[in-house]
Amino acid sequence: MKLFYSPGACSLAAHIALEEVGAKFEAVLTAIGENRQRSPGFLALNPQGRVPIVIVEGCVLTELSAILLYVDRRWPEAKLMPDDPWDFARAISLMNFLASTVHIRFACIWHPERFTPIKKGYSDMELSARANLLRDFAIVESRLPNTGWVGCERFSLADMNLLPLYRWGWRVGLHMEQFARYTRLVDEASRRPAVQRVLYREGLASLLAPALVLS
Amino acid sequence: MKLFYSPGACSLAAHIALEEVGAKFEAVLTAIGENRQRSPGFLALNPQGRVPIVIVEGCVLTELSAILLYVDRRWPEAKLMPDDPWDFARAISLMNFLASTVHIRFACIWHPERFTPIKKGYSDMELSARANLLRDFAIVESRLPNTGWVGCERFSLADMNLLPLYRWGWRVGLHMEQFARYTRLVDEASRRPAVQRVLYREGLASLLAPALVLS
Repeated sequence: MKLFYSPGACSLAAHIALEEVGAKFEAVLTAIGENRQRSPGFLALNPQGRVPIVIVEGCVLTELSAILLYVDRRWPEAKLMPDDPWDFARAISLMNFLASTVHIRFACIWHPERFTPIKKGYSDMELSARANLLRDFAIVESRLPNTGWVGCERFSLADMNLLPLYRWGWRVGLHMEQFARYTRLVDEASRRPAVQRVLYREGLASLLAPALVLS
Repeated sequence: MKLFYSPGACSLAAHIALEEVGAKFEAVLTAIGENRQRSPGFLALNPQGRVPIVIVEGCVLTELSAILLYVDRRWPEAKLMPDDPWDFARAISLMNFLASTVHIRFACIWHPERFTPIKKGYSDMELSARANLLRDFAIVESRLPNTGWVGCERFSLADMNLLPLYRWGWRVGLHMEQFARYTRLVDEASRRPAVQRVLYREGLASLLAPALVLS
């Protein structure tokens, strides 16, 4: 199995999931900072030009949520998602909110050209996205537990999914420590050996504080 | 169980899923055209002001993907998703692409105020979204089978998820019949008794042709 990732991108969540279950996989660096996700070789694998993707027996799987749920199905003994249908669905609801709402705000800031070719509109779009992000993260915060993990006693796919977005919040200048439960969760996640191994492999010093972020 | 829906919105997929499994539920009309999803009563249920939501034993579940996967978990005998982990993940990948990329294009066209307050940028954003949609639908088309359903022999959640977006394509003026496999799939889905019951309940004449669409 191969995972194509870029340091600190949302692929971080897939990277952590594979490390948590003890999967044997090759992590293939596809640095967005060098636009490697737009190289002809990568576009042949994923015409959308986005990480993460995984390749299993020559077949390509795109979309972070799909990769995370594949890891859950392939390693069911790891219990990466709650068993109870309602708790499972609540975790999926949070993951989908992150993918289809929160992630899009960052796309508006970092890739406004995906939305409009008119460059003079970019700064207004960024301001709007930043305001929306504070509202979105307040919704995220309201769904998080005071202790433990999202929806179950175990570190879940939803928890993993939260990690890169917290760091992105800092990167765009939001004071993420205002979200106390989110900060507590990211702090506890950061202490896990599997998470530490992935942060080291991706060259990231920390998820928590902007001053400590290497890339 | 209650499902809050607006006619022809992406809630249509959840509505069909519940009808397909024979669930007992109340369908609560929350017409976006009348801005009912922004009423204080609805916002108390979902601060995001979006349909669909379902309420089960007084608890709220947001996000279409989560509702669809809840139906799958609650009615496993209906086999709404492939059993095989890879086929399951491929179906999720398509669903996530619809939620986090295709749906967003329509948001750019119908709700540009979510992205920028500068109204004179809206027409450019719409043109951009329309061009992106043609590319996105070509990706969707490339993932669809020539016969049967997405990822399995049974009508799946991914198939249901495809239905409202096909109709939306027509609504924004795209010639959706250029996507032959997608059109074939929507045509076959439209003949299913459960789908017909839901279209009737939502007041939609057809998913296929714009001239036949009532709302």
